[in-house]
Amino acid sequence: MERRTVYVGASSLPRVKISKDHPRYRSLVTRERMAAMVEEGIVSTTGLIAHGRGEAFDYLLGETTVPEADLAEKAAAAWLLRAERPVITVNGNAAALAAKELGDLARATGALVEINLFHRSEGRLRKVCDLVEEEMGMKVLGREQDAVLEGIASDRARCTSQGLLAADVVLIPLEDGDRAEAMAKAGKKVISIDLNPLSRTTLAAEVAVVDELTRAVPNMVRWANELRNRPEEAQAVLAAFRNQENLAAVMRRICRGLRKGTADRSER
Amino acid sequence: MERRTVYVGASSLPRVKISKDHPRYRSLVTRERMAAMVEEGIVSTTGLIAHGRGEAFDYLLGETTVPEADLAEKAAAAWLLRAERPVITVNGNAAALAAKELGDLARATGALVEINLFHRSEGRLRKVCDLVEEEMGMKVLGREQDAVLEGIASDRARCTSQGLLAADVVLIPLEDGDRAEAMAKAGKKVISIDLNPLSRTTLAAEVAVVDELTRAVPNMVRWANELRNRPEEAQAVLAAFRNQENLAAVMRRICRGLRKGTADRSER
Repeated sequence: MERRTVYVGASSLPRVKISKDHPRYRSLVTRERMAAMVEEGIVSTTGLIAHGRGEAFDYLLGETTVPEADLAEKAAAAWLLRAERPVITVNGNAAALAAKELGDLARATGALVEINLFHRSEGRLRKVCDLVEEEMGMKVLGREQDAVLEGIASDRARCTSQGLLAADVVLIPLEDGDRAEAMAKAGKKVISIDLNPLSRTTLAAEVAVVDELTRAVPNMVRWANELRNRPEEAQAVLAAFRNQENLAAVMRRICRGLRKGTADRSER
Repeated sequence: MERRTVYVGASSLPRVKISKDHPRYRSLVTRERMAAMVEEGIVSTTGLIAHGRGEAFDYLLGETTVPEADLAEKAAAAWLLRAERPVITVNGNAAALAAKELGDLARATGALVEINLFHRSEGRLRKVCDLVEEEMGMKVLGREQDAVLEGIASDRARCTSQGLLAADVVLIPLEDGDRAEAMAKAGKKVISIDLNPLSRTTLAAEVAVVDELTRAVPNMVRWANELRNRPEEAQAVLAAFRNQENLAAVMRRICRGLRKGTADRSER
């Protein structure tokens, strides 16, 4: 986490000094880091807008891992451990926010990592692959895409035959709705991480994690380490998890927060 | 509105073709326009994230002007008409989204326009002033800031003595919470336009418009034209408007949408 606080402000703007005592310190530092990552060519401008959408939903959740999210993260870890060919997809925003942590999760669960950009160009793909491999300390798939995912018309269908195409369980942090639906249709077990509880990505998932990425992934690593040598407990977690009920509980929680006005901690 | 559809995609990215039949056409075109405006130096990268936060709340409202917003827009128009020294503040995001429409509102209500950037630099201030004056076809205040707003420590306190400092009623689209609170403390009647129903800006306002800027402003112009020569009706609107009740109704509406899952039209 230490490296992350280096980025406080995009270089074209006056550097922003954020007090560690600020109640929203973490969110503000993350925001500045994302802005800086646009200049590095890792995050696209529309990726920055998507980050803002996430901020709004996170704000309604109180910027904390709610109990429903913790439960989904435990189930997600159990699914990844149980999978035969688990794959974690990483796009520009996921790379900018949590490359190192996603690498930890891949190691903890034996998953492969595949880079999959929404706004794809050769140059950007290379940059993101380089960043992610450096942060993770491991090789990733996706520099050469030799397969396509059915049901997507554009070149966003592109993937690798070794990775996404062959996967039985896929973890898709911050993924696009079209791709999430295509993966579900292809019979893969989809685990999403998306702060919007109503997004098509969330709705396409069998395990929908509604949580902020940099909180969700370390918690999933913790659960994976806890469940790794306890297959019976992992099995019990999977059997007990009810995704739709869990999502409905998240909505009720957001509504309670809206009614009480508890989310009024924004600096905006 | 025709000019607005010109910007579809930032120039550094593959141009995005958006079908007019897409249910979220308007939101997607606006998003691409905002991304393009970053490259022009009008919108800051953190402004882009703020736009994303707005998108999320708008999405929960169904991307429509809800009845509570229409009511607040009518009250806002009545207040601007009744004011002795109304001022409309314009920052980078407001300039990028609705400069022309805000100019129409200034003319319809006799308000002055003052440019007020959150991430201020001389170069950016000049660019935004030039853009807004061209789009509005009128002079704006703010190139020379000769006064400060009490209660703000940074240079974000800067304003003009002729404009903001002397105003009795201020319309503050997409404004920062600190400045909104400082204006309220200075005794000004604050009218906000902010999609976050719980933001400090919304909570500081006496008339809080929870609506998307490009929908809200033309509707306020329409109400201003309707009420201009009917002072008794305008007075009745002001007397009847209950800001807190109106905001509470917006929250209930968002909750109903969340429960029904009606906001699941996102492409994300």
